[in-house]
Amino acid sequence: MVKLLTGKEVVAALREDLAARIEHLADAGITPTLAIVRVGERPDDMSYERTAMKRAEGLGIAVRSFALPADAAQADLEAVIDEVNADDALHGCLLFRPLPPSMDERAVCDRLAPEKDIDGISSASLAGVFADTGEGFPPATAQACLEILDFYGIPIEGKRAVVLGRSLVIGRPVACMLLARHATVTLAHSRTADAAAHTREADIVVCATGRARAYGAEFFSPGQTVLDVGINFEDGALCGDVNFDAAIEALGEGGAITPVPGGLGSVTTSVTMAHVVAAAERVLAG
Amino acid sequence: MVKLLTGKEVVAALREDLAARIEHLADAGITPTLAIVRVGERPDDMSYERTAMKRAEGLGIAVRSFALPADAAQADLEAVIDEVNADDALHGCLLFRPLPPSMDERAVCDRLAPEKDIDGISSASLAGVFADTGEGFPPATAQACLEILDFYGIPIEGKRAVVLGRSLVIGRPVACMLLARHATVTLAHSRTADAAAHTREADIVVCATGRARAYGAEFFSPGQTVLDVGINFEDGALCGDVNFDAAIEALGEGGAITPVPGGLGSVTTSVTMAHVVAAAERVLAG
Repeated sequence: MVKLLTGKEVVAALREDLAARIEHLADAGITPTLAIVRVGERPDDMSYERTAMKRAEGLGIAVRSFALPADAAQADLEAVIDEVNADDALHGCLLFRPLPPSMDERAVCDRLAPEKDIDGISSASLAGVFADTGEGFPPATAQACLEILDFYGIPIEGKRAVVLGRSLVIGRPVACMLLARHATVTLAHSRTADAAAHTREADIVVCATGRARAYGAEFFSPGQTVLDVGINFEDGALCGDVNFDAAIEALGEGGAITPVPGGLGSVTTSVTMAHVVAAAERVLAG
Repeated sequence: MVKLLTGKEVVAALREDLAARIEHLADAGITPTLAIVRVGERPDDMSYERTAMKRAEGLGIAVRSFALPADAAQADLEAVIDEVNADDALHGCLLFRPLPPSMDERAVCDRLAPEKDIDGISSASLAGVFADTGEGFPPATAQACLEILDFYGIPIEGKRAVVLGRSLVIGRPVACMLLARHATVTLAHSRTADAAAHTREADIVVCATGRARAYGAEFFSPGQTVLDVGINFEDGALCGDVNFDAAIEALGEGGAITPVPGGLGSVTTSVTMAHVVAAAERVLAG
């Protein structure tokens, strides 16, 4: 039987940990507060905003939304980022991306104060992940991969990890984080000649290319752990980057995989909340 | 016959390119100028300082040395960095490391203005390499690896590269740079169970762990390209990380390797000079 690495147990464990920490912050008069910054009204963003607000509310984390019209100028958005940076009552900031093509996304991301950059979008946070400088936060999805592996007791040190996809949101940072935990890490991507030849040799495979059900039986071997980061819609249904049915056949006894939905997505939301709490704790610690 | 990827042809080509660019800068009244900042008088640093000064002089690049005593305080060094940052006549800065253990090396590195960080030591430069933000410069040794591959026409795109060693000076940045050129990249290191099993499958192997003659025949396969970044002294002689004689046997016809000495070292010095010129050009371009 393939083990399903479901997110809900991880979410519950994180919730328990956070509850105690949020209580401790409350004793010091601090309510951890998340700023959500959104440009326009993309359905994906609106949906995630609702999910995040609900999760935050359940935990005792406050949320303040900053919504700009779809045709906002870069200066308008930068003014909001400056306001978030300046407001001591806001501990973390989640900025929905991609930004409108008229905007310089890198400049906006780098304007956010690293100590409030709870989703790892600034260069300072990316350098923090790449170079272990300790600045900022890693991207929440990348951190969620590590949380799942750790919760389910899957060893990382000395293991072979293959990451499919090299985005700054997940592929590159999760590769660095697995490397920091002493895995031997391969980054494969669209120009890789025979990606399946790499993934079949791995202990841990992270699929993060955003290609619906793209990875079938030929990509996997018995006993592997597969983290499916994809969130794709196909024929109206949510699915991952992995062809799930084919993969569980190939993984066999001792194999493990995150389902979609029910896997990494909900853990990512918890990690976002955990980063807000950590940011508030850093303020308390001075 | 194994092809020797000697540095001197690469250095000559870079020199020719730089000569024209330095002349162009001279026409605009700009002498590209390198600041060398040194704490103490370690023989390695003194030796590299002499090499760099000689190379700079031969090219028409000016050098200003800032030497602090071995027991300098961090504030003294930071004052020098601030002076370099503020002086428009200084285009690039080379800071010898490691700094004395009493100093916070990361803080000092991050104090250097990214546009003068010609050896890629600041977090901004490291984020530039990791995230393609275009800020700062990549570490010179990592860039030298790419210069050698390009000069000798060795293809990178779609090839398998294995990097042994994960330092911030070479391993991690060269991995990112090979990835940006569309190689499939594996980072292996001291905790990798069977590093030779990885390197044998690669098209390009970068050895950068600083372990003298550590990589013998079992690490290599016929036809590979090997970049030996190591600069080690053993029994009074300079040697690389690769056991050279064993490696050339294993690489056979079609294989290629950088010798030590005579390989990457001198190219790294040229890249440092090229970065100073590029920094001066950026000033000219405004």
